[in-house]
Amino acid sequence: MEQVRYGIIGIGNMGSSHALNLVDKIKGAQLTAICDTSPARLEWAQAHLPESVQKFDTPEAFFASQAMDAVLIAAPHYDHPVLAIQAFENGYHVIVEKPAGVYTKAVREMNEAASQSGKLFGIMYNQRTSPLYTKLRDLVHSGELGNIKRTNWIITNWYRSQSYYNSGGWRATWAGEGGGVLLNQDPHQLDLWQWTTGLMPKRVRAFCHFGKYRNIEVEDDVTAYVEYENGATGVFVTTVGEAPGTNRFELSGDNGKIVVEDDKITFWRLRVPEPQFNAEYTGGFGQPECWKCDIPVHGGHGPQHNGILQNFTNALLHGEKLIAPGEEGIRGLTISNAMHLSAWTDDWVDLPLDEDLFYDKLQEKIKNSTFRKETAGGKVLDVSGTH
Amino acid sequence: MEQVRYGIIGIGNMGSSHALNLVDKIKGAQLTAICDTSPARLEWAQAHLPESVQKFDTPEAFFASQAMDAVLIAAPHYDHPVLAIQAFENGYHVIVEKPAGVYTKAVREMNEAASQSGKLFGIMYNQRTSPLYTKLRDLVHSGELGNIKRTNWIITNWYRSQSYYNSGGWRATWAGEGGGVLLNQDPHQLDLWQWTTGLMPKRVRAFCHFGKYRNIEVEDDVTAYVEYENGATGVFVTTVGEAPGTNRFELSGDNGKIVVEDDKITFWRLRVPEPQFNAEYTGGFGQPECWKCDIPVHGGHGPQHNGILQNFTNALLHGEKLIAPGEEGIRGLTISNAMHLSAWTDDWVDLPLDEDLFYDKLQEKIKNSTFRKETAGGKVLDVSGTH
Repeated sequence: MEQVRYGIIGIGNMGSSHALNLVDKIKGAQLTAICDTSPARLEWAQAHLPESVQKFDTPEAFFASQAMDAVLIAAPHYDHPVLAIQAFENGYHVIVEKPAGVYTKAVREMNEAASQSGKLFGIMYNQRTSPLYTKLRDLVHSGELGNIKRTNWIITNWYRSQSYYNSGGWRATWAGEGGGVLLNQDPHQLDLWQWTTGLMPKRVRAFCHFGKYRNIEVEDDVTAYVEYENGATGVFVTTVGEAPGTNRFELSGDNGKIVVEDDKITFWRLRVPEPQFNAEYTGGFGQPECWKCDIPVHGGHGPQHNGILQNFTNALLHGEKLIAPGEEGIRGLTISNAMHLSAWTDDWVDLPLDEDLFYDKLQEKIKNSTFRKETAGGKVLDVSGTH
Repeated sequence: MEQVRYGIIGIGNMGSSHALNLVDKIKGAQLTAICDTSPARLEWAQAHLPESVQKFDTPEAFFASQAMDAVLIAAPHYDHPVLAIQAFENGYHVIVEKPAGVYTKAVREMNEAASQSGKLFGIMYNQRTSPLYTKLRDLVHSGELGNIKRTNWIITNWYRSQSYYNSGGWRATWAGEGGGVLLNQDPHQLDLWQWTTGLMPKRVRAFCHFGKYRNIEVEDDVTAYVEYENGATGVFVTTVGEAPGTNRFELSGDNGKIVVEDDKITFWRLRVPEPQFNAEYTGGFGQPECWKCDIPVHGGHGPQHNGILQNFTNALLHGEKLIAPGEEGIRGLTISNAMHLSAWTDDWVDLPLDEDLFYDKLQEKIKNSTFRKETAGGKVLDVSGTH
């Protein structure tokens, strides 16, 4: 292969942005096909994409076309696993937008299809290309922080007004998106929370508020407490209802404390590890000597979406290692599903998750939904500048 | 009254520090009596306090003496309500060290005794004199922040090594202190959390870890989630096991966000209140204009313990309003008790608290305790510089 031919299914907010990037920003990539069931989006494609790009209005025709080597899935959340499985069955490599899906049961099937196909499988975790988080991961995985004691992410700067929700009737509904802030805004943080630390919770107790700040039926305010296998605990707080909100990720470990905030990493590094100090100290009050270290982070926000597309392309052309293997999408979604399930059952949720129970509860929500909202029609919002 | 004559019961860590301050730092105050059952502490008093200070080795003799107008109680936690009630019955004004007690049932009785006595009743919430927190309270109570949506206090800089716990056999035991970090280190924050915001939780779900970082039987690591009557939520995270730890208190409200950290207050103030922006905005993405404001705070850490002693003295001499009325001690303790009870029952705790249930559970802990620790004897630690 000298060039990777991409087909995109779903030319909405994200898909159209990816399309334009694939046309001229990704080396070794070529946009050869798109698919959308909306006539308006096909018109947009006709007007903005090269003539050579084949346009399909049904997934069946798109998948049958063999007009591409790799399929980029930017359809609604629920369709991600369904379309990915079809893509694998038709012999395509697949890169899927986040979240991997809405419930892990389907995502597990997608992962199995990927594995059986032998094709490359990636997920659009573009924040994994952020120098901030790759550096944080490096600090943890190289052992600088030592054993982790606590994680704490306040990620409340996902402000969304009611007008955002009114821009699409499917937005923030159980049937349309399968969730709110956890499914639409937080997939990156839910990925980075475990990717940077290497820790998955072993149990989750979460408190979700549904339609608290916005006229929506899904969660717009969440506080979750988790416990890890190594004894560490964690907190995750998120909402769309606060302004200006906070994005502050704190990790405490045997060797000190790391805070990621305002695009900076600060490492309060202990001169001797805390457990050693504790074992040796005899003075009553007193604590380990601590150095406040500003950790260098270069490269701004990093290549983001284009970084993932370039990496996926390079993986196909040159065997480069994937930054975000598709199979890892289930991790963040598992945490998200566990938070919902904990709130719905008002109880602990142990991991591995009871995937059938989650699926049943979600179907109940969809079935029992009586929510109707005023919408301004299916507007495509400009997402440039958002991550 | 031209001078307030003080008697201190309990001349340990805090009592001895208060005694020295009353001798020469509080205008209008005079130290006239002390009481301690420990011969070593009486020897210390003999060596360090004026000859004129009467020394008693039993509470009975101390209370019978009428050697003072006001009693400062700096005995172990459990004794606070018992001794306060005795003091009121003997006609004394009372100022009690924090916490008000160990369980609210006894503290409620203390409050009733205070009310019936008609005497002045104060509590040593010295952090209420901190310019940082008086300013924060002012910002909230004057309406600058607007309706509160969320509170979040990470107070993990209460580092205590094992040697601290080994300095007294009673430390961090159910029988001796009735709790760990919540009872000994956090009473100030548990007070300030509700005093600055004016919000008491209506229900609490807490996760306590007992003897996780230290060889103790009580909690040394706590994460709590609370819900308030107005719909706001809150998180409180505390531990003695992390270094360097964090002390960061964030409040989110309709008019923006306030963060108290590093002895500074930052107010991210919205130009229009968020609910108004949300109601009027039609642009999809977008959020209210926000101004980052550095809030001036003057006076360093404030007068702290001496400020409370001076205020109590002035209240008696000149009718000055109490900064920390003793009756308010039950509030922080109620939150503390609720956190313990939630952890013990692994369930929600609604407020008002079931005080009998808490009391019974605490008695069980004491009765079933099999914990014995190696101690270095009853050392008196130098607490100067600690708050």
